[in-house]
Amino acid sequence: MHQIEPKFSFEILKHGPHAARLGLLQTPHGTVETPAFIFCATRAAMKSLTVEQLKAANTQIILSNTYHLMLQPGPEVMQAHGGLQKFTGWHGPMLTDSGGFQIFSLGSGNIADEIKGRRMLAQDQTLLRLSEEGAEFRSYIDGKKFLLTPEESVRVQRGLGADLIVVLDECTPFHVDKSYTRGSMDRSHRWALRSLQEYLRHDNGTQKLYGIVQGGVYPDLRKQSVDFVNSNEFFGHAVGGSLGANKQQMYDVVALTMSMLSRDRPVHLLGIGCITDIFNGVLHGVDTFDCVHPTRIARHGGALVKPWHRPDDESREHINLRNSKYKLNQDPLEPDCSCATCSNYSSGYIHYLLKAEPTLAHTLLSQHNAYFMNELMQVIRDAIQNNKFMELRKQWGILEHHKTIENELLLLDSL
Amino acid sequence: MHQIEPKFSFEILKHGPHAARLGLLQTPHGTVETPAFIFCATRAAMKSLTVEQLKAANTQIILSNTYHLMLQPGPEVMQAHGGLQKFTGWHGPMLTDSGGFQIFSLGSGNIADEIKGRRMLAQDQTLLRLSEEGAEFRSYIDGKKFLLTPEESVRVQRGLGADLIVVLDECTPFHVDKSYTRGSMDRSHRWALRSLQEYLRHDNGTQKLYGIVQGGVYPDLRKQSVDFVNSNEFFGHAVGGSLGANKQQMYDVVALTMSMLSRDRPVHLLGIGCITDIFNGVLHGVDTFDCVHPTRIARHGGALVKPWHRPDDESREHINLRNSKYKLNQDPLEPDCSCATCSNYSSGYIHYLLKAEPTLAHTLLSQHNAYFMNELMQVIRDAIQNNKFMELRKQWGILEHHKTIENELLLLDSL
Repeated sequence: MHQIEPKFSFEILKHGPHAARLGLLQTPHGTVETPAFIFCATRAAMKSLTVEQLKAANTQIILSNTYHLMLQPGPEVMQAHGGLQKFTGWHGPMLTDSGGFQIFSLGSGNIADEIKGRRMLAQDQTLLRLSEEGAEFRSYIDGKKFLLTPEESVRVQRGLGADLIVVLDECTPFHVDKSYTRGSMDRSHRWALRSLQEYLRHDNGTQKLYGIVQGGVYPDLRKQSVDFVNSNEFFGHAVGGSLGANKQQMYDVVALTMSMLSRDRPVHLLGIGCITDIFNGVLHGVDTFDCVHPTRIARHGGALVKPWHRPDDESREHINLRNSKYKLNQDPLEPDCSCATCSNYSSGYIHYLLKAEPTLAHTLLSQHNAYFMNELMQVIRDAIQNNKFMELRKQWGILEHHKTIENELLLLDSL
Repeated sequence: MHQIEPKFSFEILKHGPHAARLGLLQTPHGTVETPAFIFCATRAAMKSLTVEQLKAANTQIILSNTYHLMLQPGPEVMQAHGGLQKFTGWHGPMLTDSGGFQIFSLGSGNIADEIKGRRMLAQDQTLLRLSEEGAEFRSYIDGKKFLLTPEESVRVQRGLGADLIVVLDECTPFHVDKSYTRGSMDRSHRWALRSLQEYLRHDNGTQKLYGIVQGGVYPDLRKQSVDFVNSNEFFGHAVGGSLGANKQQMYDVVALTMSMLSRDRPVHLLGIGCITDIFNGVLHGVDTFDCVHPTRIARHGGALVKPWHRPDDESREHINLRNSKYKLNQDPLEPDCSCATCSNYSSGYIHYLLKAEPTLAHTLLSQHNAYFMNELMQVIRDAIQNNKFMELRKQWGILEHHKTIENELLLLDSL
């Protein structure tokens, strides 16, 4: 049995450049060195990786989705098993979301979803009614109706037992106007207060609650929402809501939001995980990231590789092992990678497996991509420590994004 | 790079009881302690397990199917990658079959297939023409015609590069009559001689060839076939052909065949892998077994468990984790199992994963079943070593099968 001493803290070890920071996020299940990447174990499991493989990839922290787990196996079953960590065999730090994202991400994949690398299945499109009380939806498993209120979300997350939990908010799509965004933000703030009340009512020191910054792409709304979370007793902050129609707009929204957020709390950027976006987020002070990107591209034959290992014709951040040019390739995915996949298997074998035994191919690619992300965060932390972050960005081919910092200053002036 | 010193040997360390024996089968890629189980990495990969997971389960030796690999990736690609072991990352001993089984196992699943735990997919039913020259078939991948001759089978197996290779034979179904069985056996013997010629023509000490005993359920034909393999220069023998309509008939055929085979060569029993059948085979002197059973049942939610861990109502050799009685079960699959799955995960979690994330469930169950089979063979070897094999059989609830030994004696008398 793991004896848990309930203890949380967030300590900043080093600042700079710009708003970047090196930190330690302590939870009862272990300490996370930040900046860190949080892997999505959506249904209390990574699709293709065991806990042992996750650990071998140097994973620090994972998250699960409350929406899926409240439907299956349900919080009662999870509690009977002693909570997420005991159930999954992952005894390290965990986060759960509120359940809201899956309920609200309806429709046919808006641009914000695209940017966040998320796509919804038709079966997940189950929102029935949104009211002040909460969101009513239909289970995609058995058609049963559920009402997810802020209180219920916290109650379910308490049953799931992750270290870090999140308030319920409405996730607005990109295309809604300012008036809708304002109304939704105000309601999300009221929900956040109800979440906080419910959390405090039963707080026994084993979980900490994150508030979420809303406000879409509107600087004045973002400021209102930042003021709201800053002034309430949240342990940490998550940057949520629509981040815009394109990457530059996302960078602007993140930069502006980060510049106003309380500097003493950990900040999580929801659903963002491309390499360029991570470098940008870190520069603006983001401490943790999550995204399905590394494991999703693995299931499509994609391996994350450093820019200097990418073929000249490859503009994405990964290579596609389905390409027949890998057929006779005896090299590992990356020559300098120490992951379990690169240590034992060639690119040609993975190319073959994608056709002949895709399940194993997905495992091998997921192993590599998880190790890759953890190593990326490690070199980022080392670079901040050694005052070489801007050099590292350059080495990784990240554009300068001066525009973002200029925009941030202009927007701040206008507020 | 692995420096291989081509060296093969088969040494019997201890005899008894009955015809059981403890042995060492040495190959250039390592030594196999026998009796041993050979796992099916059909398409040069286990479906749900990495090589590291296979090793952690104490696996000694695996096999791949020539039929699948000659079509994809093809022997040329395999040779370009340096052969099966380098390609797959499995650097231990390996066996390939001749390619014949998949071509000949047409039709709608005969009883012999049932007994061997094999079922064919419609896509695999591709035999076009069977002649003295060989078997013509159509690729299930691209419809291309192939002619598999004895020489071609050996040539392809040479390209694949496994340590142990097998002559091409016709795999007759259970329902054919004695006349067909005799004609087929005679042709298989001619094919075996052609396989042997082709093998000897290029023998460089890196591979060894197994002959196959045919003769169906007919004692006189089995005797002729045993005489044939005994009198030719095969390194080892495989017991093939139809083993009958039911378990008792299979035991009788195995017992009779084993009683006549040369005692100084290793013997492999093709496609047999249930626990009871293994105890029976070992008693009659079988050294190695192969079967898709342990990994196939894993993909259907099955976990192999020792008889004393089975519920009273369970007559099979495994439990089904899909059963809702496991929903709240916090125990591992077996309380005394040290496999990676039982060390880290509960039965209830696996029950849940079978619904929510089946890929990971299959990995966890395959890990357990592979470890289980290797541990079973280890306790069998220990029992032979310590003169406790008959006690072990009893402990595992194996019926006495005196009938088999009586039948064997009667049949031997009649020859």
